[in-house]
Amino acid sequence: MSAPAHSTSKHRLDDLFAARVKELPPAQPWPGRGDGQPIITLAYGLADPATFPREELIAATAEVMAEEADAALNYGPACPALVEQVVERLRASGVAAEAEQILIAYGSGQILGLLPQVFVDPGDVVIVEGPTFLGAVRQFAASGARLVSVPVDDQGMNVDALEAILAQQASAGVRPRFIYTIPTFQNPTGTTLPLERRQRLIALAAHYGVVVVEDDAYGDLRYEGAALPTLAALDQEGWVIRVSTYSKILAPGLRVGWAHARPEIIQRLARVKVEGASGPYLTRVVARYAASGRLDAHIQELIASYRRKRDVMLAAIAREFPADVSLVKPEGGFFIWCQLPPDMSATALLPLAEERGVTFLPGTHCYATGEGDDAIRLAFSYQPDDQIEQGVARIGAAMRALRQQGRSG
Amino acid sequence: MSAPAHSTSKHRLDDLFAARVKELPPAQPWPGRGDGQPIITLAYGLADPATFPREELIAATAEVMAEEADAALNYGPACPALVEQVVERLRASGVAAEAEQILIAYGSGQILGLLPQVFVDPGDVVIVEGPTFLGAVRQFAASGARLVSVPVDDQGMNVDALEAILAQQASAGVRPRFIYTIPTFQNPTGTTLPLERRQRLIALAAHYGVVVVEDDAYGDLRYEGAALPTLAALDQEGWVIRVSTYSKILAPGLRVGWAHARPEIIQRLARVKVEGASGPYLTRVVARYAASGRLDAHIQELIASYRRKRDVMLAAIAREFPADVSLVKPEGGFFIWCQLPPDMSATALLPLAEERGVTFLPGTHCYATGEGDDAIRLAFSYQPDDQIEQGVARIGAAMRALRQQGRSG
Repeated sequence: MSAPAHSTSKHRLDDLFAARVKELPPAQPWPGRGDGQPIITLAYGLADPATFPREELIAATAEVMAEEADAALNYGPACPALVEQVVERLRASGVAAEAEQILIAYGSGQILGLLPQVFVDPGDVVIVEGPTFLGAVRQFAASGARLVSVPVDDQGMNVDALEAILAQQASAGVRPRFIYTIPTFQNPTGTTLPLERRQRLIALAAHYGVVVVEDDAYGDLRYEGAALPTLAALDQEGWVIRVSTYSKILAPGLRVGWAHARPEIIQRLARVKVEGASGPYLTRVVARYAASGRLDAHIQELIASYRRKRDVMLAAIAREFPADVSLVKPEGGFFIWCQLPPDMSATALLPLAEERGVTFLPGTHCYATGEGDDAIRLAFSYQPDDQIEQGVARIGAAMRALRQQGRSG
Repeated sequence: MSAPAHSTSKHRLDDLFAARVKELPPAQPWPGRGDGQPIITLAYGLADPATFPREELIAATAEVMAEEADAALNYGPACPALVEQVVERLRASGVAAEAEQILIAYGSGQILGLLPQVFVDPGDVVIVEGPTFLGAVRQFAASGARLVSVPVDDQGMNVDALEAILAQQASAGVRPRFIYTIPTFQNPTGTTLPLERRQRLIALAAHYGVVVVEDDAYGDLRYEGAALPTLAALDQEGWVIRVSTYSKILAPGLRVGWAHARPEIIQRLARVKVEGASGPYLTRVVARYAASGRLDAHIQELIASYRRKRDVMLAAIAREFPADVSLVKPEGGFFIWCQLPPDMSATALLPLAEERGVTFLPGTHCYATGEGDDAIRLAFSYQPDDQIEQGVARIGAAMRALRQQGRSG
């Protein structure tokens, strides 16, 4: 039983891996973030570092240490005061929330990643939007879900198309497990589902007995127009799981998000959240920061700042892009989705843009189905104003170069 | 499509749940923590709040905010400097570690919870110690693993028994997926596996091609005796996954732990860690704190403090418990495991102790198999000296009362 060299062992480690991870999906290239490089990234919905409340977070940390270090630094549940704050915010938005309906998690991404463990056995149908937030959808796919995509138009999910899909699935004896939607300032299109569509969506969910996952990371960041009721507020039967986060309204790096749903769903999400409650320390820092109106005041500052940046980007696009690139002005959120004219391919545009020192997300990274080469997503959230203007100008130049290639090719 | 009242809906939510969470396990009662109550809990391995470096953590937070807030507060990977610190500590202990072999997680409990997702298809065999840390083992069981228990004696896992089990499984054509062991200051027995047993365990793992999960939360907290090589340091073939944490050497509430293993294992653990990398903020606070020798100095202080508390508890036990209660003096860690005489039941003792204002962990909470009514686990980590003394005295009184009952009954 001497130790032979690694390569000569008669046993293969691979044979010990569970079926679900036997093969790893191939790494898929995403545009670079451009950290510390001379490239301007408009690709990702990063938060604006200029908005981070550094001093206030130090102050919140000091408060936690002075007043509740014992509970914050030992084993224990997530901060009860944070759960209460989430409950209060939900109630203020018309949702009859209780603490047992809340799960605090390491970002809303964790909730979205755990959802298929609660709802999906291999082969089950999950309905997603097209285009959508692919980070979540890839997790659904990894669990063995069959994805069915509902188109998004300039008013969010096309609910007629959803109804047709649900009817078709029902006639085939299939009850989809959930509908994943971003109804407010949708990622990537920036569109917002109008009230009438929201009501129909909720009615359809109840009629067909399908859960609706309302991913609402951006809803607090509305730059114009009147707020609409959330899907959770419209839901009278408990079919909605509302998922949100402190990432966009405070700081993504903290990794604090939450879900609101029926207790039996929350209990199951908690069961598959194998590490137990999200940490007592981090959740207390966020709760302290968010208390006493600090968070509300911060959100007002964010709205002013991100609205300005959205407008800077819209103006730059109007100035720099060919007139046949179209878009829907987003009333909130982080993104502008540009529909390209038929002669322009997003994936062909990307290398020309990168050569010019700018990067964006091709629409192909926003569909579960490989579509999307006719659109690009630009984030105005991360870059300062002058970089937004320069980045858009460079993409405009890349668009003209692509057209030139097409004509001479 | 009007919305009927909740209870009259024709669709049941339950039918949407995936098989793995269709039924939730019944809640199992655990002894109370006694927070804020007049009961002295010796039940759990909580850290001593008196040791928490409050001011240093505020200072580390301020450093992060001053020097790297942009990376810490935005989306991004776990702090690379923390990964480097883990690598350096591993190398210092004789492990040829590389950064790609490290996964930072939300506590070592998260790693242990994710392990079965990487290694267990329902029905696969996992070998655990008896007694052991049931928090981990319940996660293995929930994934559908068949648990096989190896007895622990006063020198840790009985490796003869392990060899017999491995031979038996092999002759039945079964290759167990992993062996879960706490070789150093074992939870709950406090025992430490001697070098010769460590070498045999590693040789057996290589011979039978079984992964060894070395859970080493307490190894840095050695109060006497010479440190032994870790299983990771003895392993030449890559069968060991080493799992550890900042919980015992810094603060559990931070929820920062890590795993070291072959890259193909780390990649798969990262795949099932659905929320992605552990947060850039929290990992930077810990890395800042741990830099510049602060953590090493802190560990020395912890050793002095916990050694004293262990000795306080040992002296109290010698004074207060019946002479036929036996124990193995632990060289480190948080626990003293007391073997009860044949006429004493741990579960019968518990209510008598609780009546007297003290609680402990019955041995039945330390076996996957329901054994353990002949032992109790006492944690000396959490309570101040005088409470340890009082708590042990009360348990001693409960033991005498139990004997009295037995004689009169």
